[in-house]
Amino acid sequence: MKLWQKNTTSTKEVEQFTIGRDPEFDIVLAPFDVLGSLAHATMLESIDLLTKEELAILKKGLKDIYQEIQEGTFTIDPGVEDVHSQVEFLLTERYGDVGKKLHSGRSRNDQVAVDLKLYYRAVIQEVLDDAKALFDLLLTLAEKHQNDLMPGYTHTQLAMPSSFGLWFGAMAESLAEDMELWLAAYNLADRNPLGSAAGYGSSFPLNRTMTTRLLGFKDMHYNVINAQNNRGKTEKAIAFAMAGMAGTLNRLSADIIIFMNQHFGFVKFPDNLTTGSSIMPHKKNPDVFELIRAKANQIQSGPQNLMMQMTNTTTGYHRDLQLLKETTFPDFEKLKDCLQITKFMLEHIEIKPDILEDKFYKHLFSVEVVNDLVLQGMPFRDAYKKVGLDIESDDFAPDHTVNHSHEGSIGQLCLDEIRTKMETALAKFDFSAIETSYQKLLEA
Amino acid sequence: MKLWQKNTTSTKEVEQFTIGRDPEFDIVLAPFDVLGSLAHATMLESIDLLTKEELAILKKGLKDIYQEIQEGTFTIDPGVEDVHSQVEFLLTERYGDVGKKLHSGRSRNDQVAVDLKLYYRAVIQEVLDDAKALFDLLLTLAEKHQNDLMPGYTHTQLAMPSSFGLWFGAMAESLAEDMELWLAAYNLADRNPLGSAAGYGSSFPLNRTMTTRLLGFKDMHYNVINAQNNRGKTEKAIAFAMAGMAGTLNRLSADIIIFMNQHFGFVKFPDNLTTGSSIMPHKKNPDVFELIRAKANQIQSGPQNLMMQMTNTTTGYHRDLQLLKETTFPDFEKLKDCLQITKFMLEHIEIKPDILEDKFYKHLFSVEVVNDLVLQGMPFRDAYKKVGLDIESDDFAPDHTVNHSHEGSIGQLCLDEIRTKMETALAKFDFSAIETSYQKLLEA
Amino acid sequence: MKLWQKNTTSTKEVEQFTIGRDPEFDIVLAPFDVLGSLAHATMLESIDLLTKEELAILKKGLKDIYQEIQEGTFTIDPGVEDVHSQVEFLLTERYGDVGKKLHSGRSRNDQVAVDLKLYYRAVIQEVLDDAKALFDLLLTLAEKHQNDLMPGYTHTQLAMPSSFGLWFGAMAESLAEDMELWLAAYNLADRNPLGSAAGYGSSFPLNRTMTTRLLGFKDMHYNVINAQNNRGKTEKAIAFAMAGMAGTLNRLSADIIIFMNQHFGFVKFPDNLTTGSSIMPHKKNPDVFELIRAKANQIQSGPQNLMMQMTNTTTGYHRDLQLLKETTFPDFEKLKDCLQITKFMLEHIEIKPDILEDKFYKHLFSVEVVNDLVLQGMPFRDAYKKVGLDIESDDFAPDHTVNHSHEGSIGQLCLDEIRTKMETALAKFDFSAIETSYQKLLEA
Amino acid sequence: MKLWQKNTTSTKEVEQFTIGRDPEFDIVLAPFDVLGSLAHATMLESIDLLTKEELAILKKGLKDIYQEIQEGTFTIDPGVEDVHSQVEFLLTERYGDVGKKLHSGRSRNDQVAVDLKLYYRAVIQEVLDDAKALFDLLLTLAEKHQNDLMPGYTHTQLAMPSSFGLWFGAMAESLAEDMELWLAAYNLADRNPLGSAAGYGSSFPLNRTMTTRLLGFKDMHYNVINAQNNRGKTEKAIAFAMAGMAGTLNRLSADIIIFMNQHFGFVKFPDNLTTGSSIMPHKKNPDVFELIRAKANQIQSGPQNLMMQMTNTTTGYHRDLQLLKETTFPDFEKLKDCLQITKFMLEHIEIKPDILEDKFYKHLFSVEVVNDLVLQGMPFRDAYKKVGLDIESDDFAPDHTVNHSHEGSIGQLCLDEIRTKMETALAKFDFSAIETSYQKLLEA
Repeated sequence: MKLWQKNTTSTKEVEQFTIGRDPEFDIVLAPFDVLGSLAHATMLESIDLLTKEELAILKKGLKDIYQEIQEGTFTIDPGVEDVHSQVEFLLTERYGDVGKKLHSGRSRNDQVAVDLKLYYRAVIQEVLDDAKALFDLLLTLAEKHQNDLMPGYTHTQLAMPSSFGLWFGAMAESLAEDMELWLAAYNLADRNPLGSAAGYGSSFPLNRTMTTRLLGFKDMHYNVINAQNNRGKTEKAIAFAMAGMAGTLNRLSADIIIFMNQHFGFVKFPDNLTTGSSIMPHKKNPDVFELIRAKANQIQSGPQNLMMQMTNTTTGYHRDLQLLKETTFPDFEKLKDCLQITKFMLEHIEIKPDILEDKFYKHLFSVEVVNDLVLQGMPFRDAYKKVGLDIESDDFAPDHTVNHSHEGSIGQLCLDEIRTKMETALAKFDFSAIETSYQKLLEA
Repeated sequence: MKLWQKNTTSTKEVEQFTIGRDPEFDIVLAPFDVLGSLAHATMLESIDLLTKEELAILKKGLKDIYQEIQEGTFTIDPGVEDVHSQVEFLLTERYGDVGKKLHSGRSRNDQVAVDLKLYYRAVIQEVLDDAKALFDLLLTLAEKHQNDLMPGYTHTQLAMPSSFGLWFGAMAESLAEDMELWLAAYNLADRNPLGSAAGYGSSFPLNRTMTTRLLGFKDMHYNVINAQNNRGKTEKAIAFAMAGMAGTLNRLSADIIIFMNQHFGFVKFPDNLTTGSSIMPHKKNPDVFELIRAKANQIQSGPQNLMMQMTNTTTGYHRDLQLLKETTFPDFEKLKDCLQITKFMLEHIEIKPDILEDKFYKHLFSVEVVNDLVLQGMPFRDAYKKVGLDIESDDFAPDHTVNHSHEGSIGQLCLDEIRTKMETALAKFDFSAIETSYQKLLEA
Repeated sequence: MKLWQKNTTSTKEVEQFTIGRDPEFDIVLAPFDVLGSLAHATMLESIDLLTKEELAILKKGLKDIYQEIQEGTFTIDPGVEDVHSQVEFLLTERYGDVGKKLHSGRSRNDQVAVDLKLYYRAVIQEVLDDAKALFDLLLTLAEKHQNDLMPGYTHTQLAMPSSFGLWFGAMAESLAEDMELWLAAYNLADRNPLGSAAGYGSSFPLNRTMTTRLLGFKDMHYNVINAQNNRGKTEKAIAFAMAGMAGTLNRLSADIIIFMNQHFGFVKFPDNLTTGSSIMPHKKNPDVFELIRAKANQIQSGPQNLMMQMTNTTTGYHRDLQLLKETTFPDFEKLKDCLQITKFMLEHIEIKPDILEDKFYKHLFSVEVVNDLVLQGMPFRDAYKKVGLDIESDDFAPDHTVNHSHEGSIGQLCLDEIRTKMETALAKFDFSAIETSYQKLLEA
Repeated sequence: MKLWQKNTTSTKEVEQFTIGRDPEFDIVLAPFDVLGSLAHATMLESIDLLTKEELAILKKGLKDIYQEIQEGTFTIDPGVEDVHSQVEFLLTERYGDVGKKLHSGRSRNDQVAVDLKLYYRAVIQEVLDDAKALFDLLLTLAEKHQNDLMPGYTHTQLAMPSSFGLWFGAMAESLAEDMELWLAAYNLADRNPLGSAAGYGSSFPLNRTMTTRLLGFKDMHYNVINAQNNRGKTEKAIAFAMAGMAGTLNRLSADIIIFMNQHFGFVKFPDNLTTGSSIMPHKKNPDVFELIRAKANQIQSGPQNLMMQMTNTTTGYHRDLQLLKETTFPDFEKLKDCLQITKFMLEHIEIKPDILEDKFYKHLFSVEVVNDLVLQGMPFRDAYKKVGLDIESDDFAPDHTVNHSHEGSIGQLCLDEIRTKMETALAKFDFSAIETSYQKLLEA
């Protein structure tokens, strides 16, 4: 039985086709649905659409349900269409007609829209926590391995000296820079759509500024059509941010897979973190990193998936929007999994020492030697020629030390600056304000 | 003849295949290449890799070339590989060996990287100017048409009263919200890669903080591997921002195309802005909006195109990166064209007045009537039932006025708040600091 | 415990991350795994790697397992890595060491490769059955509605007379033409990879021609590297075929959604197949078609998703390949659901009669009138001018009959030719040969 | 001045925005436009819409224009909208009003549709010619290098013995299998849309069967709406086929880039086909293969680009379709370039001999040794254990010969079967029938 229905029941074929994976997603949205309802109820009382007494009843009812969700006892009954209906049914069952009054001045369109926003803010915080933990480990590893040299490649060809310190630091700074897209996504998520009703507003004198404040939103989508059209747009921004960070994980994994190849042999992991074969003892398969690489590609496919669903459609709610959750929700879990397992694996990484001592790598140092000669006063063209001739006559035996000193080079990793970059970025996400708002709502 | 070559010349097949469309893009990069070289030269002098006299010569030479670029007389000679080589050849031709000294402590990798960053900052500014001009027009139209009602649709079905004021305002606020992604892209563009050399830094004691300041960068990519790995990453962020804004234009066009359909007939444009047929007088083809819609889709394909090229590759420069320009550069032009022509078209839009007067639309008002009854004290369920029965018995003759009053609704468009949202967003792009830096470089 | 392991057990974090959704997919593959093993065992006996007695035991064991799978009693035990291991464990548990002999001369790489091929052939047959059922209905509807005229649009503008017969017929022929891509996909699926082992063949004297025949494959991937590299390539071809057919469903849904819009009002469906509202009686939301449209877009995102995972990787198995199943398997189900529900819905479609009788549509006939005058001998330019003037002076009152007679036009729908096109296409998929092979394998 | 215009001229802004890159594409379509017109004119005469004399004039005029196109003297005059208009203007200018009669019974929609089909058939033939040439070289190289062993990798880890013969053969068979998608694309291209007019047919008694035959089409799109809806659908099938083949080139390039890495060092190319540095003598940058890899990715982005433009749109011509050419046309050129340069490069490839002689690779042979012991009668588990222990105690000194004998293995490359696979596939494209039809049209 659906809330909007008069006499007809939709056939089971239609029912089954249209419900899709929503039940599993609705459970995720449940706590946010209750928070949204608490704010809406509070606002309704302020404009005299609820009495003080009705509000008190609804608040108690909603807080009880919130508690049940936290305890894992909340479920959506068979035949109940969605989480919004379930909450309303529970309230009505427990307190009578006052339960139905909660729906005044809103539609399920803006109810799900606000639920999603609250969920996105929460799950973005979880992602950033995981990213920060990985970032911290990367910085620790960068510092630990700042003197462990390795080759650097261009065109997949041996090119110049590099170091593990540099490599770990690069991955850390990349994560810090991924925060820019997350901030954009977060800022779109952190805007209140409540009050847009079915996308064209309401004739009730709603106070949207009030619900914006109650739910800890930094801002609102003012225009109600824009609030509705934002469905899919926030999701795209989130997909972009996920794709950006997935790009960093993809690069990190691709590097480690090649570093683990026996020709390179730069890093290894304990046997119980790789797969192998007792008759192929040198084989240590980097399955985890191959799967991170692949999952990062799935996540990087998210933007196009969402855009394909949204494009060329007109203003106003379309049922198509329901399916965006099938991309966004699992991708959040996938990304968090990848961040966590990357950290887990890197906690056990072992670096091969003294790689560049092998004379196989001596030509890596030719640019250093040229530069040294230049610093000693020899014109560049002459220095270049001399080194070229030395190499040709096999007289090239460079010192294998590296004296890079500028900002961000092997000799000056700027880890503090990179840490600051991350922390400055994170400071722009004011998660604590949300926490405070929710506490007020739940305590009031 | 290429700078890096000793004895061999690459065959013409290879030459032709590898050069691709770079000559056309290199001309675009030319002024930025000179600015980057001015900063690099100034820094080289500060670390004693150039004498004061040499710096003076190079600065004069570079400023002359900059002038030639502005005047359109700069070209890349046949056989010269790229813009960097052309500038170096010109300097050497005019001033002798000092021209070659400019290349100390950098590689073409970080040279093109910094050129691209400077170009991106400039072209982002152009895009935002065009977007702001369209935004201003949309707000003007929203105000002008605030009382022109139209139907609102959900599920592509007639649903509720809306207005042109609301629709124009929605498009304006959407553009304002597109700024979040632009800011993320801009912040990645506004970071100095110079000094990363071939991606592993240099043994010269470069002062990267100095070039960061001279070129007006807000920040740098500290880690040199990260600076190199950022090639493609800034482009992805830009592609995301372009896709976001293209999404707004796609929606706007899709709406107008359907509004122009004869069944709707809500808007029209002068004959010379549409295509038609003298024997099909009612046909006014929305070619321009169809092409905006389609170009927006091409732009929305950009992210996936770039990610496909980048993914699964390892750290370090790959020649693949050259081709990213083939997506990014034309998409910038396409987006600017779309913003400009959208503005041009909307300057001539004509709105059909009094659409909702037609009784065809009367059911749009049923929710309003229910709400009115509720506000007058009737319980919601009773009000709902009454209206349902009136409609069933064909006694439903609602008043066609709309009394929406809350924030962002038909009656309170919040255009000032939307304007503030845009202006606050734009204020975060500090384009004037760049201007100042460039002037100093060119005047010094 | 895994088959390849000696002493170490992978940690639970790694275990959990790497197993992913494979258990659910492995159950789908189970019957095909058994069929592949039956063929492999038969071949092993022919090259003296199994005795006749061993073969008899293995065949009995495999057929029992096949039966258990059919009856739904087969499960993968907790801790068993995959379906291949489960089958081997069952055989070994039941018959001792002979169970292990089955694995001679193959690796899990070619075992899963062949399982997938057999599964793809089977599920393609299911898709084509569903497509054929929808096709048949479309032809029936085309014939039934051949005289029901409707407007045809270009540029989303009213343009020319069309008919429902024409529209249904177009959708039918589109499905028939979708078979081309399905045939390409099927031909790639219908090639035997068994015997490629880990992607580099085996030193056992395998008879791949024999397994090709036993499993009813039309052909084999001869080269063993190519057989391995084909992992992902067959999937891409399948994704292309699915995307092609999804394109047809997307177009069909987009049309119906607009035909259901109240301004058009061309078709409707019974109340229990749409959603609505008792106070908005004219609203019949096309939720099912919106979801078909959206699911078709998810399916159309498949190709890019798979390509992103495959691209830039090198020859040889990568664990990344495991995740392709997460796209391909659910998309098959999604496509079948969409085909079935489209058929279900269209069985209940109601067409508005006599649409073009309304004078609103009279200009649709202007081209007809011009052509009539030309056929009567008037020069085209004169005819065109006369009609233009008639329209301008409002004297245009065309006869609303349509006399199109050429192939594929309103008056000659060519439904027989379209049926032949479909049947000719379907005849190229020789599913019965597969059936015969399987029966032999299971009976022998 | 446009053909459809009465009094108004579109503004230059609109003109410029809408014309886009069509002039460059229209020149490509010109010869096909003339061929289409020759067939249309011949058919018009058969249904008495042209007299014999008029047909003779038009044929002469069209053949002259065809000649001018072949000679490169045909151009589209400034202000003329497209190639169709230019041809009509030329005919009218030269022969008077008869030139205008050519347009009876067709619209520019089906004219461009048929032009595109003819162009696609021609350019597919060019692609297949280039692919066949590369295929032939790959087979030659496979045969030449059948005894040159190299390592095979799984998980990017050394795994088993492989050979260059096997690798080249794999690339060849992959190209042969790419033909399946090309055949699907070709079959969609090889269907006549002419006679569908603006997508809803014509009231003229056209003989579409006749034009189908005259233009050498294997079949037609019967249903006229389907013929119109096929715009974009044939392009998608082509994009799929291009993406498929690009996948093969991407894999080939990715392999060669890693084979050229100094740790591997398996292949090299002459100095003038790579880029390098005199002070980094071991560096031979694989720029050409990096660009093939990247261009293959651009081509693999084609499907999604086209689908994004098409999806969610309704039946009937939309101006959006014009832009599909911007993806399809350049991608054809890109693919041909890549096929040609790959062949050019591989003609100069040098293989390192005796790679596996190095004891670094000895563990590659462990599976061989186990299998040998099994073939000599030792139970698998015992053989496996023995080899494992030998390796552990460092007593493993396998014979470095490889005795693979089954179909498609190192010892039996099945090059004849692979050649047959390609030739069988190519035989399904009947290009000579087209040639014959065109000759008749041009000679008649």
